Amino acid sequence: MRAYRSEWKLRKEQAWRRIWEDLEIGYIDRDLLPILLLINADSELYTTSSCSGRIVFVDLDYPWERDETGIVFKSHVPITPSEVGFIYHYRPYRKLWAVASGPIIHVYCYTGKKAIEILTAARKTGFKHSGIMYVSKTRGIFLELVTGVYVAQLVKTSNAIFIKPEDVNSFVGLLNSVLIEGKKRLQRLYLELSKILPEKPDERVSEDLKNRQLALNKTPLEAFIEVCREKYAKPVQI
Amino acid sequence: MRAYRSEWKLRKEQAWRRIWEDLEIGYIDRDLLPILLLINADSELYTTSSCSGRIVFVDLDYPWERDETGIVFKSHVPITPSEVGFIYHYRPYRKLWAVASGPIIHVYCYTGKKAIEILTAARKTGFKHSGIMYVSKTRGIFLELVTGVYVAQLVKTSNAIFIKPEDVNSFVGLLNSVLIEGKKRLQRLYLELSKILPEKPDERVSEDLKNRQLALNKTPLEAFIEVCREKYAKPVQI
Repeated sequence: MRAYRSEWKLRKEQAWRRIWEDLEIGYIDRDLLPILLLINADSELYTTSSCSGRIVFVDLDYPWERDETGIVFKSHVPITPSEVGFIYHYRPYRKLWAVASGPIIHVYCYTGKKAIEILTAARKTGFKHSGIMYVSKTRGIFLELVTGVYVAQLVKTSNAIFIKPEDVNSFVGLLNSVLIEGKKRLQRLYLELSKILPEKPDERVSEDLKNRQLALNKTPLEAFIEVCREKYAKPVQI
Repeated sequence: MRAYRSEWKLRKEQAWRRIWEDLEIGYIDRDLLPILLLINADSELYTTSSCSGRIVFVDLDYPWERDETGIVFKSHVPITPSEVGFIYHYRPYRKLWAVASGPIIHVYCYTGKKAIEILTAARKTGFKHSGIMYVSKTRGIFLELVTGVYVAQLVKTSNAIFIKPEDVNSFVGLLNSVLIEGKKRLQRLYLELSKILPEKPDERVSEDLKNRQLALNKTPLEAFIEVCREKYAKPVQI
């Protein structure tokens, strides 16, 4: 199975342009960029909305609801206890949840063969819930690469607070350790994919990268440590 | 793409026998059985280890670790506050987590076409993280049908207890509501699949069901309500 060539290429062109727009307005976490560039460098692959792993506090009935308006706090880097202090005066509209989750990478593949190759690499590196989500002649084979790294913790309802002030430090430590476990798996996926990609280099993409003077010279974990160092103004131990 | 016929049939035969062995020793939740029978009634499908949704308390570093020895408490039906009382004298070896999760159904398909049909039905009924996990000539196309219905709550560490006695009732209510949301989605999947299955009836399976004097006359939700009624000795409101 393979997608229609011209339609698929058009969609890749749109998705590729979108990455740079999102990057400009700060929608893309910097530690996500290395894997996006690596995947898109192959002419049979492109990525769409992805995430390098994050900690969010959401005000929703249930943590799996996809309502971005429910997000109260969001971070792609480790958080500090003082950042969480707001939970003691915040009044939940529904329920306040803390969710720490690993990376999610969305990939469209031109052929079924390629999709299986990527899927195999993903499963090998701890992205155990990865799968082909759907198949379309115009869009290609859609892969979701995802780990089981996920914690959803009820923090506060209108009646009760589940995280006591004396437990905030260990609670924050827990969320951070989940986040970091996700970042480590992203790194493993990146290194594994580096062995096989780009299999068929995408000239349009490599040309564009040359013009932007961007090279694939940083791994996700290097980028993550760099962002952490900027936040905490000191080296971070991973 | 289709699997090798004879090898695939042999594996179905083994998986089918396994269901009855598991049922006898109580490994299969009764409200899971209707969907297993429905799927296996099609000659191009068989199921392996699946779950109708459950609440577990696990003693693990992280809730996604797959270590069955970490399970301290398990229930496929709603739980009562008194069942959770043990958390106040339980000493965690690592960390005690409460995990409420929706159903997971594992299906092997003989053809790619059939896999896409099942996947489409699953996504339509709230099994939004479903996907083709791998493809093999001998085993067929492997589908994991899964919802995002999932909460993993830290309950206790060696230093701290996160659920206070006065919050146990609302905490248990929350776990139960997550469980029931999962059961409702299982029902929707069952009803949706009932419209298309069995597409090609499996004579071996229908013969066997006849001998066992078992008919597909109960929905997952009916079976769930029946099990709940037995536990609580009164009707349960869903």
